[in-house]
Amino acid sequence: MAKKLTPRSQDFSQWYNQLIQEADLAEHSPVKGCMVIKPYGYAIWEQMQSTLDKMFKETGHVNAYFPLFIPKSFLSKEAQHVEGFAKECAVVTHYRLKNSPDNKGVVIDPEAKLEEELIIRPTSETIIWSTYKNWVQSYRDLPLLINQWANVVRWEMRTRIFLRTAEFLWQEGHTAHATQEEAIQETLKMLDVYFTFAEQYMALPVIKGVKTQNERFAGAVETYCIEAIMQDGKALQAGTSHFLGQNFPKAFDVKFLTKENKWEYAWATSWGVSTRLVGALIMAHSDDEGLILPPQLAPYQVVIIPIHKSEQEYQKVTQQCEAIAQELKKVNIRYKIDARKEHTPGWKYAEYELKGVPLRIAIGPRDVENNTIEIARRDTKTKQVISTDNLIHIIQNLLQDVQDSIYQKALHFRNSMTTRVDNFKDFESVLNDKGGFIEAHWDGTTETELKIKELTKATIRCIPLDSPQEEGRCVYSGKKSTQRVLFALNY
Amino acid sequence: MAKKLTPRSQDFSQWYNQLIQEADLAEHSPVKGCMVIKPYGYAIWEQMQSTLDKMFKETGHVNAYFPLFIPKSFLSKEAQHVEGFAKECAVVTHYRLKNSPDNKGVVIDPEAKLEEELIIRPTSETIIWSTYKNWVQSYRDLPLLINQWANVVRWEMRTRIFLRTAEFLWQEGHTAHATQEEAIQETLKMLDVYFTFAEQYMALPVIKGVKTQNERFAGAVETYCIEAIMQDGKALQAGTSHFLGQNFPKAFDVKFLTKENKWEYAWATSWGVSTRLVGALIMAHSDDEGLILPPQLAPYQVVIIPIHKSEQEYQKVTQQCEAIAQELKKVNIRYKIDARKEHTPGWKYAEYELKGVPLRIAIGPRDVENNTIEIARRDTKTKQVISTDNLIHIIQNLLQDVQDSIYQKALHFRNSMTTRVDNFKDFESVLNDKGGFIEAHWDGTTETELKIKELTKATIRCIPLDSPQEEGRCVYSGKKSTQRVLFALNY
Repeated sequence: MAKKLTPRSQDFSQWYNQLIQEADLAEHSPVKGCMVIKPYGYAIWEQMQSTLDKMFKETGHVNAYFPLFIPKSFLSKEAQHVEGFAKECAVVTHYRLKNSPDNKGVVIDPEAKLEEELIIRPTSETIIWSTYKNWVQSYRDLPLLINQWANVVRWEMRTRIFLRTAEFLWQEGHTAHATQEEAIQETLKMLDVYFTFAEQYMALPVIKGVKTQNERFAGAVETYCIEAIMQDGKALQAGTSHFLGQNFPKAFDVKFLTKENKWEYAWATSWGVSTRLVGALIMAHSDDEGLILPPQLAPYQVVIIPIHKSEQEYQKVTQQCEAIAQELKKVNIRYKIDARKEHTPGWKYAEYELKGVPLRIAIGPRDVENNTIEIARRDTKTKQVISTDNLIHIIQNLLQDVQDSIYQKALHFRNSMTTRVDNFKDFESVLNDKGGFIEAHWDGTTETELKIKELTKATIRCIPLDSPQEEGRCVYSGKKSTQRVLFALNY
Repeated sequence: MAKKLTPRSQDFSQWYNQLIQEADLAEHSPVKGCMVIKPYGYAIWEQMQSTLDKMFKETGHVNAYFPLFIPKSFLSKEAQHVEGFAKECAVVTHYRLKNSPDNKGVVIDPEAKLEEELIIRPTSETIIWSTYKNWVQSYRDLPLLINQWANVVRWEMRTRIFLRTAEFLWQEGHTAHATQEEAIQETLKMLDVYFTFAEQYMALPVIKGVKTQNERFAGAVETYCIEAIMQDGKALQAGTSHFLGQNFPKAFDVKFLTKENKWEYAWATSWGVSTRLVGALIMAHSDDEGLILPPQLAPYQVVIIPIHKSEQEYQKVTQQCEAIAQELKKVNIRYKIDARKEHTPGWKYAEYELKGVPLRIAIGPRDVENNTIEIARRDTKTKQVISTDNLIHIIQNLLQDVQDSIYQKALHFRNSMTTRVDNFKDFESVLNDKGGFIEAHWDGTTETELKIKELTKATIRCIPLDSPQEEGRCVYSGKKSTQRVLFALNY
């Protein structure tokens, strides 16, 4: 039987770590700060990847691949960028090892020192814009709408599986445009793609917003984001889309000849989501018994478990399991039959509860005779016995219903965890006692933002795009403000 | 109009480089030895990737992800392995940069020196087996059938796009088994998967064989491979599958409890193919006008080009193009419509010839009236005007025919380039005058193998699995031999 998880209410962080371990999602690697993504965790990422890849292609993007290494000097070309990333870089200095003098292993060969150090990409703006220089000469070469699936490295001191690791997997879109307007449109279009992915596939309600100057991507003119709330009341940034203006085109001298025969710098965007979304998925929906996965992203949407005593029953029941699996296959429902004899049905129930499979079908000898099955939902733990007539239709409806229910539950939770606050005393008490999003007025200065962070650890997650204009006073400084922003403690 | 390529007969290597450039497949990056894979080249890799991934999953494998970094000491744990890979490693020594004293950029922060250097993975046996140690305790945990899609780095001094670059993309399967027999079966099963992929998807005839001890993967007991011949008569290793015995399990102490309650070391395999297959695809089929892609892997199987003079014609003709495209879409034929007005049909014909699109459809105003289209094959350059009745069926047949024809042509070429040789004089003259595979007897010693390589640059590509037992004399030493092996110059 699977180990019982620490309840979320008792220690959310421990619950998260145990769940990742018990559900076989990932583990710490022997390399400090790096994770091993185990097959079941990777299968979730593959579902995310294939869905997003399709959405990117449907919006006109193509994939390409740029080098892992960035020459050190490239980083320095954009002033903000180097400030943001130089402090957490993995640096390659040599390209060869040799036997150690004592013959007890290998050491760096001092003769194989690189003339210029190479940085493992923390993000690829610099290497990509240095390449775009050769690809962009005329307005006819624009737009470039390119995405890359890749690993990146940011040397984090405090790591947490999926949420913050030295190496992680992601996609990074990098587009080049002829006009500012088109680049801004692209930035917002990709924010919408992320919004749709979060809401419709991850079943995760998110707020679209723009970051404050202080929270902006290093090198961006504006950073847009989607922000979600986790079950412990902390916020999580689930995706960002940056309008980069002409910062990188200028740094790498990417100019093009306009229709009017003038030379102009191109306009840039970049946007990305990462394996941190797997962490978000876990923390948004799961419970004390294990994962709860939205059917749209579950590696298996249905698990089928035969119930049997004798060998004769086993044969009969597994045959029926196979027959039902064939029907599921025809309509592309992802399923797994677990007919292992070394585990009891009870063990398997706990196992797939832990692994968050949305629907569980159990079939015993009597079910075969009666043409019935027992079907159980992971999210509500309700069970029903149904006839195998019209089974596929019922399963499809149930999957849709699970997807919708999970979303509605998360939405209801977020609404209950969003509090409007108008003075700093309330701000602090809501933050400490309840958590969640705090809607408050802010005077628009970095000074106030940092002061609030210093006092409370809360950051401005975003200025929501749909935040109405209203007169108010900054919750901290009392200065005039025209709009509420979203504060929260965050991952 | 596209630049004319240097003919293959004049300079094969220059032809290859020009083709890669003109067809927008890839380019050298600012980082020495690394390539940028451009969208069209990457789209070919994506086709390869999705096909192989499906084949791996159908044979019971799952994907996972292991760290990019390998602690230096791990490499040394398997004696052969470190010999083979230490000399071409990218080594990370620091994890932070800081502003340089003169404020003109960034320099390594000497305080951020790693205690133990990290190697960028050249292959992942060591990091994976160090992880498997925790995953394998009992025979019930076996087999582990895991694959990884990843980038790897081997510091090559002489690079060539797709064929040999410092960083490349690949997949690496790493499996763990309870018995030697099962591991050997797995090794051969994956060799068969590669064989099927090469022959049926790449339209590339390959020879299955086993490597000599000298050409074995560093750490393997046996290395199996598929070998192909390129149009210049040089051989190319297209995939390898290694039976690793218990070498890595012993190095990383991966033991399990058998059914009989005894502790035993696990048995290991690994197998991989890389972006070098894109290079193989180019060199196997293409001609002096450009790429020739097998329909199974072509990013676009059909390109549709409207022919028009007036705007009225343009409307009418592009509407018909769209209608046909919709039919293609229904049966999952990958297509592209190029209705750009700034390019002439002639320019487009040359462009898609260069890009190797298997079928080209042209539709003019008269075609719309007559319900006809003109369809041209890239491989044979034959054209025909056909009725749009039954069009999809004809296109499907043509695509199959192109796939078969390309394969047959390559097979015929390989047969014509395989020469049986029985003395060293003939060996040298065939190698110099004709190239290709040389079937010759060899005495089985590394000494002779290296001597032949020194004298001729030819290597033993493999001992073919289907090579018949026959008495003979080594082509170099004259000693007794029981089997012919395949020699060739190689990439």
